Amino acid sequence: MSVHTDQSSVTVLGLGPMGRALAGAFLEAGLRVTVWNRTPGRDGELVARGATSAASPEEAVAAAPLTVVCVVNYDASDAVLRQDAVAAALKGRTVVNLSADIPERARDTAEWAGRHGVRYVDGAIMTPTTTIGTDDGVFLYSGSEELYREHQPVLAALGGSHTHLGEDIGRAAAYDIALLDIFWTSMAGYAHALAVARAEGISAVELAPFAAGIAAILPPVFTEFAADADAGTYSGRVNPVTSAASTMAHVVHASEAHGIEASVMRVIEGQARRVIALGHGTDGFIRLAEVLARR
Amino acid sequence: MSVHTDQSSVTVLGLGPMGRALAGAFLEAGLRVTVWNRTPGRDGELVARGATSAASPEEAVAAAPLTVVCVVNYDASDAVLRQDAVAAALKGRTVVNLSADIPERARDTAEWAGRHGVRYVDGAIMTPTTTIGTDDGVFLYSGSEELYREHQPVLAALGGSHTHLGEDIGRAAAYDIALLDIFWTSMAGYAHALAVARAEGISAVELAPFAAGIAAILPPVFTEFAADADAGTYSGRVNPVTSAASTMAHVVHASEAHGIEASVMRVIEGQARRVIALGHGTDGFIRLAEVLARR
Ligand SMILES: NC(=O)c1ccc[n+]([C@@H]2O[C@H](COP(=O)([O-])OP(=O)(O)OC[C@H]3O[C@@H](n4cnc5c(N)ncnc54)[C@H](OP(=O)(O)O)[C@@H]3O)[C@@H](O)[C@H]2O)c1
Ligand SMILES: NC(=O)c1ccc[n+]([C@@H]2O[C@H](COP(=O)([O-])OP(=O)(O)OC[C@H]3O[C@@H](n4cnc5c(N)ncnc54)[C@H](OP(=O)(O)O)[C@@H]3O)[C@@H](O)[C@H]2O)c1
Repeated sequence: MSVHTDQSSVTVLGLGPMGRALAGAFLEAGLRVTVWNRTPGRDGELVARGATSAASPEEAVAAAPLTVVCVVNYDASDAVLRQDAVAAALKGRTVVNLSADIPERARDTAEWAGRHGVRYVDGAIMTPTTTIGTDDGVFLYSGSEELYREHQPVLAALGGSHTHLGEDIGRAAAYDIALLDIFWTSMAGYAHALAVARAEGISAVELAPFAAGIAAILPPVFTEFAADADAGTYSGRVNPVTSAASTMAHVVHASEAHGIEASVMRVIEGQARRVIALGHGTDGFIRLAEVLARR
Repeated sequence: MSVHTDQSSVTVLGLGPMGRALAGAFLEAGLRVTVWNRTPGRDGELVARGATSAASPEEAVAAAPLTVVCVVNYDASDAVLRQDAVAAALKGRTVVNLSADIPERARDTAEWAGRHGVRYVDGAIMTPTTTIGTDDGVFLYSGSEELYREHQPVLAALGGSHTHLGEDIGRAAAYDIALLDIFWTSMAGYAHALAVARAEGISAVELAPFAAGIAAILPPVFTEFAADADAGTYSGRVNPVTSAASTMAHVVHASEAHGIEASVMRVIEGQARRVIALGHGTDGFIRLAEVLARR
């Protein structure tokens, strides 16, 4: 069996919570799994389950045609991959980098990989470690579709949904950034809401079912506004930005009355007011997407 | 039938999109509905469906034991209700104010109502006009539970779920503020994500299914963190705030590289860094709820 068509083995570099979950799912699927982590001793449970522990990253990558990298970011993956011995061992093999970072780091890595004869697909994981190996995992990929397809049977062992987003190597990271933008901004809103609720004598557990209810409105709202945003229409028929701005002011006022800083909502209210000042007061708040990109 | 036990009629003050939806649902349920709006001419369709158009708010409130007010905010509802003729006509009758505002305005209105012998329940509507009269509407109330129960049969005509949150008249507004905080902060994150995606050549319609997927993670995440937040434990085992801060920095960097301002995420990243600086780096980001309230 040539190194390229061997779909029974895989290497995982990086054994943080996510790397361990990935390696565990590969083992579960019956693959031969070789693992390595910068700090030794993170592979005990995996080795007990049948993984092979490599003494160095070059030894690890030499053990399989496909290496999945999952470290904190691209500074970390560069530190692991961009060593002469590792680059040499990777020649003709494939790296799928599931570490999160910005699109330009993926593009820069593609350039490096090209120079060293390393085959490279970028990827991003959009769901928590607990979803790995289940139907709920969401994996995004970009770069050569042909290369992605070649390794898809092995990647499928991770479970969940796998989407190839396009040949532009930066595309998975771009989706990742946009989706994490939504996630962390929403989490900041939740943390702030918990503070305001507590000041009003409402516990987090009391608020939670209603908070979950409001969050459940978001998927259809996001979907509804998408076509609008692409068309540049931003209808405010149901909720004009003037009305949203008045609500935002209520949040700022109610927070600060309790001594809770409202800097995030102050910035957001300012953005809504800017949309209005630019003459879009009867549009929906999502018009902001255009205003943010103005130079 | 005494004015208090008549459950066949209701008055609606305020005929914006929401007021019209409420009046329409009451008509649909077979109630006798009297309507009034500051600007005339908004009641044409409702009158065609059988509503009675009142010439003044005092005439309107005199027509039923229960008046539902739904105007933009409490400045507006004060402008309507706090007139001698209206207060006199409301004596012994009930006002349910479904206009959004901050808790202290509800408390102030309770004081005014008490002085004028007006029976008053505060409320908030958490779902769009399209949900009114369907199973999907979410209505919150606070103030006297006895008074709320008395009018519940009429309010139930609006469909959906109705929850009485407690005797504190400010409680519905407090929930409203906390939930709108989550909603608008999340929407700001979405608008920003659309701008970043567009700069990366990703259309809103392409991003939408993934954006909806990320939003669908929020309800269980909110629920999961609630008990943690009440206990003050804020576990960061799955995702420490140090990791979140690094992701936030990626969002800022990727946005600004495209000339897209990232002021909201800059503030949020700063808040995460403050949580870390206060010694909570291994906690989850929701620890922020406590830090925001520090004086
Ligand atoms: N955890 C999740 O739920 C989740 C969900 C979606 C995506 N992700 C992404 O998955 C990736 C891995 O996340 P994680 O949860 O496993 O934990 P993490 O804290 O983001 O990453 C830890 C891993 O990075 C390694 N690392 C850090 N700096 C390094 C360096 N300079 N050289 C070599 N290795 C280095 C660590 O090695 P040491 O053990 O030697 O420190 C460890 O293997 C991240 O990009 C994250 O954004 C995670
Ligand atoms: N629309 C929704 O999907 C939705 C969802 C949940 C909650 N709500 C809440 O429901 C309430 C009503 O919202 P809406 O959508 O109907 O539209 P809105 O634009 O918030 O309110 C319009 C209504 O307020 C009246 N108004 C404004 N200033 C007034 C004043 N000084 N005196 C008397 N009336 C005044 C308007 O009368 P004129 O016609 O004379 O201007 C109109 O009847 C708001 O508090 C809103 O936050 C709305």
